[in-house]
Amino acid sequence: MAQHPQTIFHETTLPSPSLLQSRREIFHAVGVKAQLAQLRKTGRYTCFDLKWQPGVYDDLSRWPCPPPVYWDSDVAKWIEGACYLLLDRYDAEVDAAVRAIVDMMRSAQGDDGYLNLYFTVIEPEKRWSNLRDQHELYNAGHLVEAALAHSKYYKNDLLLEPIIRYVKLIRSVFGPEEGRRHGYPGHPETELALLRLHAVTGNQDAYELGRYFIEERGNPTGQHGQHYYDWEAEERGDSPWKRPNSYVHAYDHFYNQSHKPILEQDTVEGHAVRAILWDNMVDRKMYLTGGIGAMLNWEGFGIDYFLPQGTDDGGCYNETCASIGVMMLAERLLHLDLDSRYADVMELCLYNTVMGAMGLDGRSFTYVNQLASSEKDNDRRESWFETSCCPPNLMRLFGSIGGYLWDYGSPAADEVFVNVHLYTTAEVSFETGGGAKVSFAQLSDWPQDGKVSFQIKAPSTLKTTIRLRWPSWSPDYKITPSTAEEFECVGGYIVIPSSYTSKHSEFTVDFDGFAPRQVYPHPYTNQHVVALARGPVVYCVEDTDNPWEKDHFRDTGLARHGEIQERSRSMPMPLGSGDQAEKQCHYIELQAKGWTRKHEKGSDTRGRGRGQKSIRQAYAAEKEADNEEAVTLVFLPYYLRANRGGRGMMRVGLLRE
Amino acid sequence: MAQHPQTIFHETTLPSPSLLQSRREIFHAVGVKAQLAQLRKTGRYTCFDLKWQPGVYDDLSRWPCPPPVYWDSDVAKWIEGACYLLLDRYDAEVDAAVRAIVDMMRSAQGDDGYLNLYFTVIEPEKRWSNLRDQHELYNAGHLVEAALAHSKYYKNDLLLEPIIRYVKLIRSVFGPEEGRRHGYPGHPETELALLRLHAVTGNQDAYELGRYFIEERGNPTGQHGQHYYDWEAEERGDSPWKRPNSYVHAYDHFYNQSHKPILEQDTVEGHAVRAILWDNMVDRKMYLTGGIGAMLNWEGFGIDYFLPQGTDDGGCYNETCASIGVMMLAERLLHLDLDSRYADVMELCLYNTVMGAMGLDGRSFTYVNQLASSEKDNDRRESWFETSCCPPNLMRLFGSIGGYLWDYGSPAADEVFVNVHLYTTAEVSFETGGGAKVSFAQLSDWPQDGKVSFQIKAPSTLKTTIRLRWPSWSPDYKITPSTAEEFECVGGYIVIPSSYTSKHSEFTVDFDGFAPRQVYPHPYTNQHVVALARGPVVYCVEDTDNPWEKDHFRDTGLARHGEIQERSRSMPMPLGSGDQAEKQCHYIELQAKGWTRKHEKGSDTRGRGRGQKSIRQAYAAEKEADNEEAVTLVFLPYYLRANRGGRGMMRVGLLRE
Repeated sequence: MAQHPQTIFHETTLPSPSLLQSRREIFHAVGVKAQLAQLRKTGRYTCFDLKWQPGVYDDLSRWPCPPPVYWDSDVAKWIEGACYLLLDRYDAEVDAAVRAIVDMMRSAQGDDGYLNLYFTVIEPEKRWSNLRDQHELYNAGHLVEAALAHSKYYKNDLLLEPIIRYVKLIRSVFGPEEGRRHGYPGHPETELALLRLHAVTGNQDAYELGRYFIEERGNPTGQHGQHYYDWEAEERGDSPWKRPNSYVHAYDHFYNQSHKPILEQDTVEGHAVRAILWDNMVDRKMYLTGGIGAMLNWEGFGIDYFLPQGTDDGGCYNETCASIGVMMLAERLLHLDLDSRYADVMELCLYNTVMGAMGLDGRSFTYVNQLASSEKDNDRRESWFETSCCPPNLMRLFGSIGGYLWDYGSPAADEVFVNVHLYTTAEVSFETGGGAKVSFAQLSDWPQDGKVSFQIKAPSTLKTTIRLRWPSWSPDYKITPSTAEEFECVGGYIVIPSSYTSKHSEFTVDFDGFAPRQVYPHPYTNQHVVALARGPVVYCVEDTDNPWEKDHFRDTGLARHGEIQERSRSMPMPLGSGDQAEKQCHYIELQAKGWTRKHEKGSDTRGRGRGQKSIRQAYAAEKEADNEEAVTLVFLPYYLRANRGGRGMMRVGLLRE
Repeated sequence: MAQHPQTIFHETTLPSPSLLQSRREIFHAVGVKAQLAQLRKTGRYTCFDLKWQPGVYDDLSRWPCPPPVYWDSDVAKWIEGACYLLLDRYDAEVDAAVRAIVDMMRSAQGDDGYLNLYFTVIEPEKRWSNLRDQHELYNAGHLVEAALAHSKYYKNDLLLEPIIRYVKLIRSVFGPEEGRRHGYPGHPETELALLRLHAVTGNQDAYELGRYFIEERGNPTGQHGQHYYDWEAEERGDSPWKRPNSYVHAYDHFYNQSHKPILEQDTVEGHAVRAILWDNMVDRKMYLTGGIGAMLNWEGFGIDYFLPQGTDDGGCYNETCASIGVMMLAERLLHLDLDSRYADVMELCLYNTVMGAMGLDGRSFTYVNQLASSEKDNDRRESWFETSCCPPNLMRLFGSIGGYLWDYGSPAADEVFVNVHLYTTAEVSFETGGGAKVSFAQLSDWPQDGKVSFQIKAPSTLKTTIRLRWPSWSPDYKITPSTAEEFECVGGYIVIPSSYTSKHSEFTVDFDGFAPRQVYPHPYTNQHVVALARGPVVYCVEDTDNPWEKDHFRDTGLARHGEIQERSRSMPMPLGSGDQAEKQCHYIELQAKGWTRKHEKGSDTRGRGRGQKSIRQAYAAEKEADNEEAVTLVFLPYYLRANRGGRGMMRVGLLRE
């Protein structure tokens, strides 16, 4: 049975400073309470007293999703993340807030087990009437995740018990049986939560429901011979032409991936947070920052290779939650198929789109993660969003980040293995089948540097196999102490056999690939641009470091050759309290030669006034060479953008020579 | 008062073969009757007997536009084009068909003057209920154009009289007056027709209505304090969420350019056939073929510089009718502002998107004119379309093409001028203010060759000024007989003064620019491609001439340097009858050096099987040089594509070195 990160993350500790640890510290110091304050301020937290009336939130006309329909999930994600953080370090205020909201949720539950804020307080008669759009089952899924996190920390079932009752109710409404509804969540997620509930508690309702939701999805004739969402739309009396703005055409079902049964879907379509098909996504629909979802209109996937950098180029959405979803899928796939291509993408998302989605102050976020800014969409952060899934989602991810670093286990009493997916400074302790204590530690300055030291503490009788991900961007590596025989590489993982670990309980791997490199998008993207990367980190330019820039680096190019200089820099983390000297974020700045292009003036000599353009400009040859100006470009990691004010100008991919 | 092409085209004759004349001949020989047969076959023509019942056409459920709502306009455009052709050469079958449909239309008119097929036969109760989408006023406009063409040829008012009654009825329903509806056509066009009706007949209803429709458009509070289209939607009981597929968001009005009053619109948005703003369109939203409208979803304009070549690149629509609309606007603007930038675009559209929209057989058409084919959208032609505006629109354009070649007139009794916009072989005859006969002829092999000879036949006492458009793509020109003083150039027109024409009644201009040239799209298009052009003609590659191609030339590039060879070729025009030897379309083929790129196989050496791709491929550096194969590329004019079968692969812009 797969060990989920949320289940085992606490077996891994982050004992000393690292980039990952510093992110979790931001949530400890600021994030968890700042988000609680927002949840309170916006009514999301307090409304579980059921005293909430329209007026607390007025935009209930928004169809099909007045924002309160997914408030439950915002609160549930916060509870989940808060419990992960509490497990790492106690905080009285957070503890009290969790206890209070759990009490409110318990008393908010109906006698029949129903537990949903919006459909209890505002539109009770609409219960189960719009699974497609109104997030009712999605909320239930996040309540399940919250309950599991809660019971893990509090070791009681104050939240788990009512949630299991709620799941029982849902099971009584949905399923293959005659007379039950053959529906499924418009926004998948519930399925993962239900299967995890079954994995942890053995709950059978959860298993049957989760499996049914997955297998029934996209059935064209599931409900009285109709597609379930067509049937419920008719039940609501909706015209087929009455469709959400995110649906391109009437009768479309691709938005929520119910256009076909899941096993028949061979391309990844629709809303990018909802479903992910690996190969099509990674090879044709993923940005080099690990972002997915080029299309604003449905917050989702465009056609193959359609990956414009920003709004002025034709679009780019890349919601934070979508890349978190990629990480969750990658982690699960690694259990089924240990291949570094999954872990590489997990790391790509982590150190670029996901890490960049929160500001160093712990109070500011990006929801959309474009690769280039524009006048319309500046490179800025917000303290909260009307739809605020991303901030608490980041908290639960970094709260359980230990669970993503590695797999480990003991296939036999005298054997253990650790498969290392992500490098940082961390230590994991677990027991063998025979009950012996094992601990495994890694120490590194990743992602600034490719040198990682390992230490195994285990009885000498144990056969210990370590597998180290060899990142695809790393051309070579060196392991010390060295050894005569070559290490085998399987699925992109370097296998350190027990014959080696028995001799060397401490060893070091040093990966190449930390020299800055130029990367290009796939030719079919029609993006004739080049970006800089170093290790797993993708870089960008900002106007703060390049104050001469005037138009979002739209006319700025990077020299094909020429040295790229590295400078060690740091940025303060304004966490408000504590010793600021310790609160610095270290990073490596890059400087490279580039140019910026001026456009020819539109005037000619054929009896027109200046500015009277001739059609020639519309399709004439570029005269770049004539009007380029050399500049020195200063780059910083994409994950550190929008932390220092500035004029909101940023770009990852620059023009190529 | 501006002379419209439809009014004066007959003063210009095309006495001997030219590319333009051959296109009109195709309509004489095949087009006009082939389209009549389609109109009959599909019920469009016959249904004016009012015997039509559902069953003739079954897809009336399509909302908001069951195709029959614009059938009237298809028939009206055919009548208009047929009358233009009759004026050039009599044809008994066409004559009889026009007389018959006019009789049917007369008897189809209601006692109150109402004349619309769909809202008479199918949904009489819905009259005037959906101006936004249902083309009721648009149809009326095309009936007006048909009536003007009919009365011009037949010199009677058998059609004009009922249409003027219909206009009177419409005026009684719409206008600024209290109690009248403050609406306007969802699809503009009616306005042009009404103002032309006024120009020809002085009809006051037409003037007031045309002007009102223009000035009222986009008024946010025109009808009972609401936008007219919001008001009528409420009257229909439509939910604001019930919107046509072509409307991106509820409450959008940009699709039909009613989002603002016209004078306040500073960018060109929405459906590209409906409205055109010159500078923004030409400089930022026009393809190098003269096509406009990148977005399939609303058949219209995208954001600035968003000009992908085809479906696989992110979209490209370029409806034929949209470029015909550009030509009509350009012709009108030339009356207000004699500047070659308008005529250059008029010619660009004519010789590329517009001319390419009909096959050499006169029976096959393109509706969408992409610059690159794909598996989804092959480079093919259809014999007819469900929405079939384009074929008859081409007929009326080429039927009246003489009216687009030049302006001419006699500002004073002893002065005449001719402003030559388009070069071909043609002759125009007109009278001076003093009643003297003037004729002016041009003779050329345009667009194959830049040499044009002119002949003036006019009393020697007349002061004759000739202005010749100097195409923007032409670097230089030579006029013979030469003369000591330089010719002045005003607004891109070379002025041949009366001092010259009085000495030389015959002279020749020879324009450079007929050597093949490489053209590039604007850098902001993100299209790193290059295309070939020669004179006004843009070229493309097809698999017929390049049989080795396998994937729509997606991986094919053009060498930056290297000779481009010209070959004189011809293609048969299968017009079915007559002497085929005379029915050949001559053109110049180009051959140039290029390359085609192979992609690296997805396999690596890290313990994976072949085909197991590493993430690196998704954003790795291109290795073009490693896997390019030299090829010789064969190009033909874009306007001749899809005439010879083949596998439907075509591309204009190829990869750049």
